[in-house]
Amino acid sequence: MKVIEKIREAEAENRVVFSFEFFPPKTDDGVDNLFDRMDRMVQHNPSFCDITWGAGGTTADLTLDIANKMQNMICVETMMHLTCTNMPVEKIDHALDTIKANGIQNVLALRGDPPHGQDKFVQIEGGFACALDLVKHMRGKYGDYFGITVAGYPEAHPEVIDSSGVATLEAYQSDLAYLKKKVDAGADLIVTQLFYDTDIFLKFVNDCRQIGITCPIVPGIMPIGNYKGFMRMIGFCKTRECEQNLGLIDEAKISRPLPWRRPTNIYRVKEDVRPIFWANRPKSYLTRTIGWDQYPHGRWSDSGNPSYGALTDYQFMRPRSRDKKLQEEWAVPLKSVEDIHERFAQFCLGKLKSSPWSELDGLQPETKIINEQLENINLKGFLTINSQPAVNGEKSDSPSVGWGGPGGYVYQKAYLEFFCSQDQLTALLGKCKDFPSLTYLAVDKKGNSMSNVAPTDVNAVTWGVFPAKEIIQPTIVDPASFKVWKDEAFEIWTKVWAHMYPEDDSSKSLLEKIQSSYFLVSLVDNDYINGDLFAAFKEL
Amino acid sequence: MKVIEKIREAEAENRVVFSFEFFPPKTDDGVDNLFDRMDRMVQHNPSFCDITWGAGGTTADLTLDIANKMQNMICVETMMHLTCTNMPVEKIDHALDTIKANGIQNVLALRGDPPHGQDKFVQIEGGFACALDLVKHMRGKYGDYFGITVAGYPEAHPEVIDSSGVATLEAYQSDLAYLKKKVDAGADLIVTQLFYDTDIFLKFVNDCRQIGITCPIVPGIMPIGNYKGFMRMIGFCKTRECEQNLGLIDEAKISRPLPWRRPTNIYRVKEDVRPIFWANRPKSYLTRTIGWDQYPHGRWSDSGNPSYGALTDYQFMRPRSRDKKLQEEWAVPLKSVEDIHERFAQFCLGKLKSSPWSELDGLQPETKIINEQLENINLKGFLTINSQPAVNGEKSDSPSVGWGGPGGYVYQKAYLEFFCSQDQLTALLGKCKDFPSLTYLAVDKKGNSMSNVAPTDVNAVTWGVFPAKEIIQPTIVDPASFKVWKDEAFEIWTKVWAHMYPEDDSSKSLLEKIQSSYFLVSLVDNDYINGDLFAAFKEL
Repeated sequence: MKVIEKIREAEAENRVVFSFEFFPPKTDDGVDNLFDRMDRMVQHNPSFCDITWGAGGTTADLTLDIANKMQNMICVETMMHLTCTNMPVEKIDHALDTIKANGIQNVLALRGDPPHGQDKFVQIEGGFACALDLVKHMRGKYGDYFGITVAGYPEAHPEVIDSSGVATLEAYQSDLAYLKKKVDAGADLIVTQLFYDTDIFLKFVNDCRQIGITCPIVPGIMPIGNYKGFMRMIGFCKTRECEQNLGLIDEAKISRPLPWRRPTNIYRVKEDVRPIFWANRPKSYLTRTIGWDQYPHGRWSDSGNPSYGALTDYQFMRPRSRDKKLQEEWAVPLKSVEDIHERFAQFCLGKLKSSPWSELDGLQPETKIINEQLENINLKGFLTINSQPAVNGEKSDSPSVGWGGPGGYVYQKAYLEFFCSQDQLTALLGKCKDFPSLTYLAVDKKGNSMSNVAPTDVNAVTWGVFPAKEIIQPTIVDPASFKVWKDEAFEIWTKVWAHMYPEDDSSKSLLEKIQSSYFLVSLVDNDYINGDLFAAFKEL
Repeated sequence: MKVIEKIREAEAENRVVFSFEFFPPKTDDGVDNLFDRMDRMVQHNPSFCDITWGAGGTTADLTLDIANKMQNMICVETMMHLTCTNMPVEKIDHALDTIKANGIQNVLALRGDPPHGQDKFVQIEGGFACALDLVKHMRGKYGDYFGITVAGYPEAHPEVIDSSGVATLEAYQSDLAYLKKKVDAGADLIVTQLFYDTDIFLKFVNDCRQIGITCPIVPGIMPIGNYKGFMRMIGFCKTRECEQNLGLIDEAKISRPLPWRRPTNIYRVKEDVRPIFWANRPKSYLTRTIGWDQYPHGRWSDSGNPSYGALTDYQFMRPRSRDKKLQEEWAVPLKSVEDIHERFAQFCLGKLKSSPWSELDGLQPETKIINEQLENINLKGFLTINSQPAVNGEKSDSPSVGWGGPGGYVYQKAYLEFFCSQDQLTALLGKCKDFPSLTYLAVDKKGNSMSNVAPTDVNAVTWGVFPAKEIIQPTIVDPASFKVWKDEAFEIWTKVWAHMYPEDDSSKSLLEKIQSSYFLVSLVDNDYINGDLFAAFKEL
């Protein structure tokens, strides 16, 4: 979606818009950390995030890669900066074609700084002289596809600011006239150079309006992280100093539009239904479904028979920092299955922060509602890797289980997914006969399976009812996806957990034995009003 | 859907299957009555209904027309009889092509009786000699499209029964062998000639199984309506007499699969979402949507921008018998608007059986839950033509509001649709500000409209949650359909109601005045848990 559309929407609803800007890190660890931090910052619901274009195009490939993952894995609306420095038109088009193919729609079109070691910007052969040329080219070649943002300079462009620290009136006005040309050529949004004096910004906006610039003008702000970086930046931009405290993040009420983070990629922006199996591994799900032509909308069954891709981009799924935590918390000596039960129980209580089966930091908030019951069944050997409590018409702005904004009611069917031995499964299924509202899918590594639902049954386990809307049912349980998921779930026993032990460690063989003999079970209590999913486990 | 599939489904669920058989009436009034009666009988949920082929093809066009309306307006799975008498293959194909185009899949293939005035069946030029030829032709030309049923004769075919009243063993066995040929040629179901001795039927089934006929065999029964008709029929078929009382209709629990009668036409069999506006005029809805390429499934918004057809088959919508009742109950002298309020209030209390705005007999059962509140607002001048009470998680087999079979929970948002004056509307909308859960659409005859929802908002107002299923949301309120419906709703003031008065009657001009000045209002209370839709009307 174009940022300008998000701003128009927010205007209509009287909401404040904010965004974060990131730059490409220099090291692999830096990239790991960037995504970790970005993931957490995006929980605050910025309307979009920027990724800058490395000086002189030196980090072009990295920027393109980060932009892709921001849009499609972090799932935040991404605005990529693009500069003309050292960029012949073929490279410009390669960058634009790449992000278009990745479903990114927003570009901040800049002339760019002079190349490293030079004072002045130089137009290269086959390249552009200024941002205006870039805007014209983008509109000419890509039509309306891109939302184009351009830079505005409330204190005039640094190059026209003289040694006294201010631009002449003439220079300022000529700078404004140039900005108008960029807007007239097709830019639909202006983001300003950072500033620390709001009066200057307000005057600038007023001056823009006077000469007929009508598009939104977004103020650029750089939080002062450390003095040195700050001085360097104002050195570059010759910015006057002020302070302010916006408190946007405190003000912005964090409300999840769906129980999972909604994709921003234009090709999957309507997607609103997913299997529950990947609830704790959203990036794995995104990767495995990236090749789909259509994403299910409204209901799952319309998507026919989805074919999931293989798990490829493993490094991105599991950054080094998580590997360390896993090693620390899970690569402990395992003498018996009880030691394994203990690990799972500890994770459900929140005493471990990591799990081989989860990409997330710790537990989802709603898990706390049932964590003692989870501990109990884990200690019995029902090793849970996914769960949700039943919810019967809670207000949609409930902090623990709410989603979709205020005014509606949300529902969940109680869900448990766990590994257990064949004997435990047999005992449990015997009990299930007394609980007719339970439906289950069970399968072992080889594919031996049992179920009391039809292969085409799709069970909505999370749904919401909102004013003047159709029912939204974002999470489902279906046998077809479960078959795909089970390979991933079983693989984790060895590829992630056992993998952390030395070759001849007895813990390793214990894990391998469990992998080859246990069943993976998906269990739904369809009676979300009067049911008790844990009752079936009571006498086991 | 093929009847054989319905029988297989019922077998799997241990349900008894039954059907009714109708024959084409001789007069227009007879046709009117047939559809009225059929509509009521279909409420008992027969798995299918038969329509017979007039002797010698004399009523071919009428049979085809009735079959079409049975399948597509009455919405019952229809099995059309087709005989070879006087039917060259072109006529056979014309009949089959016609019903195929109308989405009918079931045919009872018969040789047929001899033509009127003759004793023996005669094969005509270019026609078929026997039912076996017809079955072969159907499978050859139409592949698997049709479910083909053939007739079985537990007491052998009448033509081989001699004057002693029984067939020779040889004749009986040759008749059975012929039946097997019909099945081997592609028939998938046998329905027997009527009989009144169950022992004969049981022996017949056993004999069929002995020679390798494995398909289901449905017993044919003729209820004895009057002695004369009964004697004539057993004269034809030489049937022995017995009595039995099946009580199928008492036994068969009437459970609605959806709140409205589901279409059986193979092209719209997946349809499961409709606007609420036509809730009391299902045949009008069926007619106006017959040209759709796709019927909405799962959710309404996927169907894009539906274009409704014009209201054409008016005669069928409003049979003569209903016209008489309307004349009696509604064409009364109207001296003031209060007299009009009174008519609407009386209908809501069930004291009138007809309404110009409804094709149904009286009120829907759920209306009784709110009928005194409806009376109250009608007397105030909010003239309701559609309504439903809020339902918050009632069991899906509740007799008044349930649908979809046992094991689930059903929900409704409270709904009111009414005509009122502009002043009343203004007063009501003022009140609405205190009730933020209310959403409305209002429009007058000319198209002046008011609303507090977006033009693309689709509001699910009836939905159900079932084990191992996605949420089913069969009834919605949407602004686009409301625009289409309002023309129909306003037209009824004059074309139906005012139309019943003499040209210069003052009642007529009162109705015309209301038509041209009132608003039609659709009002939803989105808070189906804590809301009270009638509270907004309290001080008006």
